[in-house]
Amino acid sequence: MPECLVFRVPTRHPADISGLDALIESGAVAPDEIVAVFGKTEGNGCVNDFTRPLAVMALEAALGARLGVSPATIGARVALVMSGGTEGGLSPHLLILARREGPAGEGKAAKGKALAVGTAFTDDFLPEEIGRMAQVRATAAAVRRAMAIAGLAEVSDVHFVQVKCPLLTSARIQEAAARGEGVATHDTYASMGLSRGASALGIGLALGEIPESALDDSVIGTRTDLYSGRASASAGIELMRNEIIVLGNAPGWSGPLRIAHRVMRDGIDFPAIQGALADLGFPGAGQLPPEAAERVLALLAKAEPSGNGLIRGRRHIMNDDSDINATRHARALVGGVAAAAIGRTDLFVSGGAEHQGPDGGGPVAVIGRVVA
Amino acid sequence: MPECLVFRVPTRHPADISGLDALIESGAVAPDEIVAVFGKTEGNGCVNDFTRPLAVMALEAALGARLGVSPATIGARVALVMSGGTEGGLSPHLLILARREGPAGEGKAAKGKALAVGTAFTDDFLPEEIGRMAQVRATAAAVRRAMAIAGLAEVSDVHFVQVKCPLLTSARIQEAAARGEGVATHDTYASMGLSRGASALGIGLALGEIPESALDDSVIGTRTDLYSGRASASAGIELMRNEIIVLGNAPGWSGPLRIAHRVMRDGIDFPAIQGALADLGFPGAGQLPPEAAERVLALLAKAEPSGNGLIRGRRHIMNDDSDINATRHARALVGGVAAAAIGRTDLFVSGGAEHQGPDGGGPVAVIGRVVA
Amino acid sequence: MPECLVFRVPTRHPADISGLDALIESGAVAPDEIVAVFGKTEGNGCVNDFTRPLAVMALEAALGARLGVSPATIGARVALVMSGGTEGGLSPHLLILARREGPAGEGKAAKGKALAVGTAFTDDFLPEEIGRMAQVRATAAAVRRAMAIAGLAEVSDVHFVQVKCPLLTSARIQEAAARGEGVATHDTYASMGLSRGASALGIGLALGEIPESALDDSVIGTRTDLYSGRASASAGIELMRNEIIVLGNAPGWSGPLRIAHRVMRDGIDFPAIQGALADLGFPGAGQLPPEAAERVLALLAKAEPSGNGLIRGRRHIMNDDSDINATRHARALVGGVAAAAIGRTDLFVSGGAEHQGPDGGGPVAVIGRVVA
Amino acid sequence: MPECLVFRVPTRHPADISGLDALIESGAVAPDEIVAVFGKTEGNGCVNDFTRPLAVMALEAALGARLGVSPATIGARVALVMSGGTEGGLSPHLLILARREGPAGEGKAAKGKALAVGTAFTDDFLPEEIGRMAQVRATAAAVRRAMAIAGLAEVSDVHFVQVKCPLLTSARIQEAAARGEGVATHDTYASMGLSRGASALGIGLALGEIPESALDDSVIGTRTDLYSGRASASAGIELMRNEIIVLGNAPGWSGPLRIAHRVMRDGIDFPAIQGALADLGFPGAGQLPPEAAERVLALLAKAEPSGNGLIRGRRHIMNDDSDINATRHARALVGGVAAAAIGRTDLFVSGGAEHQGPDGGGPVAVIGRVVA
Repeated sequence: MPECLVFRVPTRHPADISGLDALIESGAVAPDEIVAVFGKTEGNGCVNDFTRPLAVMALEAALGARLGVSPATIGARVALVMSGGTEGGLSPHLLILARREGPAGEGKAAKGKALAVGTAFTDDFLPEEIGRMAQVRATAAAVRRAMAIAGLAEVSDVHFVQVKCPLLTSARIQEAAARGEGVATHDTYASMGLSRGASALGIGLALGEIPESALDDSVIGTRTDLYSGRASASAGIELMRNEIIVLGNAPGWSGPLRIAHRVMRDGIDFPAIQGALADLGFPGAGQLPPEAAERVLALLAKAEPSGNGLIRGRRHIMNDDSDINATRHARALVGGVAAAAIGRTDLFVSGGAEHQGPDGGGPVAVIGRVVA
Repeated sequence: MPECLVFRVPTRHPADISGLDALIESGAVAPDEIVAVFGKTEGNGCVNDFTRPLAVMALEAALGARLGVSPATIGARVALVMSGGTEGGLSPHLLILARREGPAGEGKAAKGKALAVGTAFTDDFLPEEIGRMAQVRATAAAVRRAMAIAGLAEVSDVHFVQVKCPLLTSARIQEAAARGEGVATHDTYASMGLSRGASALGIGLALGEIPESALDDSVIGTRTDLYSGRASASAGIELMRNEIIVLGNAPGWSGPLRIAHRVMRDGIDFPAIQGALADLGFPGAGQLPPEAAERVLALLAKAEPSGNGLIRGRRHIMNDDSDINATRHARALVGGVAAAAIGRTDLFVSGGAEHQGPDGGGPVAVIGRVVA
Repeated sequence: MPECLVFRVPTRHPADISGLDALIESGAVAPDEIVAVFGKTEGNGCVNDFTRPLAVMALEAALGARLGVSPATIGARVALVMSGGTEGGLSPHLLILARREGPAGEGKAAKGKALAVGTAFTDDFLPEEIGRMAQVRATAAAVRRAMAIAGLAEVSDVHFVQVKCPLLTSARIQEAAARGEGVATHDTYASMGLSRGASALGIGLALGEIPESALDDSVIGTRTDLYSGRASASAGIELMRNEIIVLGNAPGWSGPLRIAHRVMRDGIDFPAIQGALADLGFPGAGQLPPEAAERVLALLAKAEPSGNGLIRGRRHIMNDDSDINATRHARALVGGVAAAAIGRTDLFVSGGAEHQGPDGGGPVAVIGRVVA
Repeated sequence: MPECLVFRVPTRHPADISGLDALIESGAVAPDEIVAVFGKTEGNGCVNDFTRPLAVMALEAALGARLGVSPATIGARVALVMSGGTEGGLSPHLLILARREGPAGEGKAAKGKALAVGTAFTDDFLPEEIGRMAQVRATAAAVRRAMAIAGLAEVSDVHFVQVKCPLLTSARIQEAAARGEGVATHDTYASMGLSRGASALGIGLALGEIPESALDDSVIGTRTDLYSGRASASAGIELMRNEIIVLGNAPGWSGPLRIAHRVMRDGIDFPAIQGALADLGFPGAGQLPPEAAERVLALLAKAEPSGNGLIRGRRHIMNDDSDINATRHARALVGGVAAAAIGRTDLFVSGGAEHQGPDGGGPVAVIGRVVA
């Protein structure tokens, strides 16, 4: 039975791989067990956030050296998902997800379900497919493949799906135009939102949250009532396909880790976080005490400003602030709310939540170590 | 018996006085009952935050018109304390504090204590006194006078002391130099911190939190272990004296409002907020339900980044961020934690907490309407 | 013969009217001679720039007191055009434009032309007219009226037209919708650009720079090849009409001041500024010496980032910077180039140049005192 | 006779080494000829600017692969000086400096002087030496060694000295304390300025601009009247020694390149730039025409805000802006002034100019290709 291991290591700067190195040196994880690395880096999380490629370059060099392969080949075997922005009190860190094979039937969770991870990739998209139904459908298919790899037969057992997706650049738009094809948008920044949105809708389609009949090109980026409560998508320039990491609780997996999720209906939906914690058996009132906080391996949440400029009827200024980007405010807020619950600040809160939860809200998932 | 009234009105922009106008028009408060206005405005809360003078100018014009006096005279009768910075999800609003006189013995709280407010002013300081013991001692004396006005005989009944204090400018430094006097610092920005710090130490001295023997010029701004757990100070260029507003629960006051406070030991000290709520009889677990949240008239908190760059051992990036000022991150964080508790975002979280709570933490006070 | 007076006074902060006061006290200008005040204030020049309303509130209070009228009536008689953003080395200041009546035929410039100013207003626009041809045509008509007031019969004598124009708000959009009318955009920020663009096209129409046949709703904001080389428009929330200030050299005006203009083809078009200076007889090479710089009463320029991300083939990062708004970079750049020419930094460089000069460029005008 | 080659290549992002690759592929330069790479990257140029390490990591990987050595060894043979901040219109680019050996006496400049480059390193400093006279003296000695390597016997032939210098971290301060040694400052950010300042004073000492008798620990960072007019220093966390690159015109070097410099007395000192251009025989008036601009291989300048808040008597707001760091404003300004002169935006303008030129000013050097 396989076991999904999750390690959380702090970083001193975006290129700091000393925590990963120490894990490997200590024998806690073998390099070839690592299937994904999620990282919170301290950039602005926006267009000119170069902490993400810096972290990727450092991780590829480190993992390449450990595995004895070229850094350029790491991306094909390990999903590296860097999320910029540690506003408020959020703490830069890496989440290292590994799959360890084990003999059948030995795990602690042999009779129940345990945390499972599966990854899958779509084929490369053509520029004209990005932010459109082609991306939605291919994402849905890949989610189903990743679920199969993870042994997740029931959609209700899936609690979080992370997607890394491409964006349009001027060069890509021109390449499509040369073939006589038009693209979803000529605004490269807007293409990030459309790509995230199409990816999230694909997840919602695969998980049965959104009926296929409700979907066409025109709803992508516009129908905010269509969303997945378990999708988290981030767009990056370095790929042309979608990379999918599915997390859930599957039969046939061992180990003490479990995942739960809820949908935050707005940025201050503290009860949603408490609900996810309660699902994992954590004490329900107030902030987790230190010993319980230590058993929370990861909190994964999406944050975005509400479009109507309000939180429960009170005005927020995120959308009108020309000094600080709205998503930066949103991450700071959700980071504070999540830290109030967990009592720690090394939490994976990322921004840009098109079709990922309701307007102004977003999914939140917790991975915890359950006690017998 | 007097009653202290507290009104919270939203603002659509820093000069928006429509909420204040509506209160007066409705008869809820008479202009001459207003003793103080606290405002959260949507500027950066730093040196070049012009939302504060804009709000003051608008409030002085509005109150001057209502009272039939020149706007220039309002500052002498109403304490106007504007705090810039509504990062994260914080919502711009005004808190209007009024003192209503009533016949003796009639109030609901005749047999116990009720929210009380008192204000007092020091004389104008000489530039060389700012950030030094002269300011500490004069502040302490003024706090005692404000306590007397509020009928607060016991220091344990005082729960929050807001001070508006002056700062040094180049012109003020030169004026002192012309008289042969040196000032505490030639860095005008640093003078804001020293003035806030001296004011907070004065509060701590008056409230018996800090022994006079521990105080001299050298500890101001340096001995972070010396602090008041009930002080909140903000520095402004528009005055040369300290203006003090003392809030507590006093015998001889009527009405359903009470105040409680705690010291947040760090920016994510959710239990401290819950403690203050519990003192007022609010339900203790999780986020307040809407009906209880409505009974929280105000939450007042100070926020600042910890000097060691850590929150409970995890790195924060506030002090190393050259794009967003550290105090902006801190307000966003504490605003998120407080909103997690209260379930609302119109909370008075302000930054710059020298000697106001421990390093990285700060006082938090809650004014609530108690139920019989 | 009338004379157009221009005064430039520094400000110490956005609400500083001490320079204006001193001018009036000294007798240099009478309050009722003032027809317009242009101000550079030190805000961000973007959505949440509250230095503009702060300056307007202070100017209205000061001029109201001087004229013995309510501050609320000042806007109807004096055009107050505040432009936020003094990035790079730009220096906050006010330009005070006054019209002084004089006996016929006495002026120094009796035989030629001299600086002339005329103002005019459109009627209030309906929300659905903003950013559309109705605004274009009404602006063009008002420009012609302002030209008539200024005695500017020839369009070639007009060198700069400043327009203050309205924008859409959610409330205005809803008011139109209630009448069954749709608006040009539901994005309130984008409405600023459309309103500026329609205003600039109206100026270009009035000045014969753009044929009416080229204009319809669809070109507003899209056809960057259609532009006025003398238009400068800024949008504000505080009005629903367009306010126009036309500056030119007219016969029948006296005094030593003249205006010239050029179109900067990009942000580093130093020769364009030198061309305008040469038109006024200033020495042509390098930076103006101090005595000549003193004779430059005002430099008025528009700045914007080029849409293709390049300046003369080299990449700029303005459009990709999520920390500093692109228009802030653009003002800093043009401010540096203009200061290189003039040798002073109190220059009126403003941002947002839709249809005001070519993409990435903009008009520049210089008002100078000519020597006999 | 050696020749100093200078190549300027644009970058599309901080890790873009395609321009360097193309140069090498084309045979224009051999990898082992490269002695230094200067880079302007598009970060904030402040504490959390991670574009610098990203560029260094990419350059080390690329040069390591070309030279067949480990990336970790590149720093010891090639000086990599990254300067963050391309505010205003500045364009990200690399300057690649190479030394090509040639047969004696063949060069075009055999009878005169030509551009020469020399590099040298100090030993590693102890933490307590940083920002103090030990660093000043060691820098001066290294400058003299680099001059000797470059064949620059006369200090008047030296026109620009770039230094990369270390800074203090908490760990370094503690290491010194463990040995009983105190450091120049406990503020790690301030240590950057002291290290740059000490380095600049060392350059001034070596070049005879500052008498040794004027120097002691107390003047570092305080006596702004002591400065080098040819020093450019930048501090980085990645080294403990000073790395020096000296540029001048030396006999015994060949090729068509020459360097000249001037001291800008303030941020708008356009005549200083024109003076340096004139020294190289460029046309003196206005902006360089395109064909002349192409012959300017590099412009190297330092920028900083004046401490008194004024430029030629007019207020700037750089020091009071809590949204944009003062050095960012200063780079934008000087970039605009320099672009006005050169007609291009790929200029090496860097910030933080302690003892590098007068307060508010700084050195400017131009490398040009002279025509026979």
